Amino acid sequence: MALTKKIIEEAAERIQQHVHQTPVLQSTLINETVGAELFFKCENFQKAGAFKGRGAHNVLFSLSDKEIRNGVITHSSGNHAGALALAAKNRGTKAYIIMPETAPAVKVAAVRAYGGEITFCKPTLEARESTLKEVQKIHHPVEVHPYNDERIIAGQATAAKELFEDQTDLDILLAPVGGGGLLSGTALSAKYFSPSTEVIAAEPKGADDAWRSFTSGKFVPSENPQTIADGLLTSLGSITFPIIKDLVSDILTVEEETIIRAMKIIWERMKIVVEPSSAVPLAAILENPSRFRGKKTAIILSGGNVDLNKLPWNKE
Amino acid sequence: MALTKKIIEEAAERIQQHVHQTPVLQSTLINETVGAELFFKCENFQKAGAFKGRGAHNVLFSLSDKEIRNGVITHSSGNHAGALALAAKNRGTKAYIIMPETAPAVKVAAVRAYGGEITFCKPTLEARESTLKEVQKIHHPVEVHPYNDERIIAGQATAAKELFEDQTDLDILLAPVGGGGLLSGTALSAKYFSPSTEVIAAEPKGADDAWRSFTSGKFVPSENPQTIADGLLTSLGSITFPIIKDLVSDILTVEEETIIRAMKIIWERMKIVVEPSSAVPLAAILENPSRFRGKKTAIILSGGNVDLNKLPWNKE
Repeated sequence: MALTKKIIEEAAERIQQHVHQTPVLQSTLINETVGAELFFKCENFQKAGAFKGRGAHNVLFSLSDKEIRNGVITHSSGNHAGALALAAKNRGTKAYIIMPETAPAVKVAAVRAYGGEITFCKPTLEARESTLKEVQKIHHPVEVHPYNDERIIAGQATAAKELFEDQTDLDILLAPVGGGGLLSGTALSAKYFSPSTEVIAAEPKGADDAWRSFTSGKFVPSENPQTIADGLLTSLGSITFPIIKDLVSDILTVEEETIIRAMKIIWERMKIVVEPSSAVPLAAILENPSRFRGKKTAIILSGGNVDLNKLPWNKE
Repeated sequence: MALTKKIIEEAAERIQQHVHQTPVLQSTLINETVGAELFFKCENFQKAGAFKGRGAHNVLFSLSDKEIRNGVITHSSGNHAGALALAAKNRGTKAYIIMPETAPAVKVAAVRAYGGEITFCKPTLEARESTLKEVQKIHHPVEVHPYNDERIIAGQATAAKELFEDQTDLDILLAPVGGGGLLSGTALSAKYFSPSTEVIAAEPKGADDAWRSFTSGKFVPSENPQTIADGLLTSLGSITFPIIKDLVSDILTVEEETIIRAMKIIWERMKIVVEPSSAVPLAAILENPSRFRGKKTAIILSGGNVDLNKLPWNKE
């Protein structure tokens, strides 16, 4: 199956009644600061607080009643967990979520709020995968990968599709990259709905596996990533990487302190709550101003799930 | 001069190109929590981060070129200062702002960002008034009071006017009360544009002078107010109080801890930044759930100017 324009259009229609059409905001003060015209697609206002709800709903509503009979399962400590729990609730089925014992309380609470059933495990990939298999053996739910799945990518692509409907003539569209679900979907939507828009990715220097993969042309896994952008720790997938290699023009890596500065600028100037991963694209603009000067540049603010008791500028 | 419907309509037209038509947001999760249908009018997204820009622009664009020749002046440590500086900039004149030495850095920075000229003084009402007179003697600017001025009230009234255009059939409209500029304007707009909507005010228990004035029928000044809601410290004015007495159905006072809880709920659930004063109406709903149950209730979120380094839930 190739991810055609039609597949993304069908995904948009399928999830329409379950997700928000999120607003596109602008800030005169930020525009003056960076010397570009910025458009922020606010997926922090999305249901369950992140773009992840788009892909999760697309999977759940693509599956037949028979297929979802035994529910769905995933391992995730992040936004995919809450999104899948919500999508399963809306589809009338059960979500089994494997979470590391170290998962932030706010993410655990989100899954529980949507009725997801959590099984905790040790915070290693091995423990997550083996625990998933154990739960799967008992209940037989369908596994839903957080990003390496064409239905997930098609769902995430709908954010950029909506953006292009709101805002034409964009020179550049910036998205953060973790596993690449959002980025590959964004690049596909640009190809189909706004081919003159250049898609650039932004990634923390401390988790630059996508940049390494992109520049070397060969898959490099994420190893011991160190970044505050907790949504961007994972490696690219076998489906997302080829799309990114093909359609993304560049990956810009940024320093941690710029991420924190960009995040604070968004909170202070735009009065909205975004998580660190969402601030990575603005950080890329702050570190590379000449590249964006005078350009109509859109940013996908990927999510707003952040522990308000542990804000990065309150660390000291 | 009476504050007629026409005067508010003219104010709306006068300021239209200088202020944002702010969005009205909803949150399914908050609705489920309180058992009412809530509509949040987001003046935290207003220019200069608060509803105050409405009144300030109405004054500046009501004055003739001759009248504003020498600029405008006010004493304020809060949102009126930034709003007046911005309005003066947009009107092509100068703003002289008298601020106490203790004013928060974030408010000082806002005034400076808009080109306002600050004179610092001791943090007493006497020092503020005498310093204002001194600066006035030198430059002869026009004084613009933060709330006890019909043009300011007409400007603030445009927030509720806009809200009624977006959302009809509201049972209740809640606004916080400090000096009463927003509340009296809100009550006038309800009278003219949505007479079936009941207007209720919310006030911190630690600064309950408006409640005392309202219940006794006689003006009670604010004395040593103690509240985190730094926008609600002032006393009612000779113009605002009679309007409030006449048109507001009730004033509900709330505990400090409920204000902080309400503020955190808004940040977490709605992913928006609001200042403590904005959270006072939701606190009133949390403390009086039966009064709002099943009601279509709107809240004016008055502003989003808050020091991100000093959030109330990070105190300990």
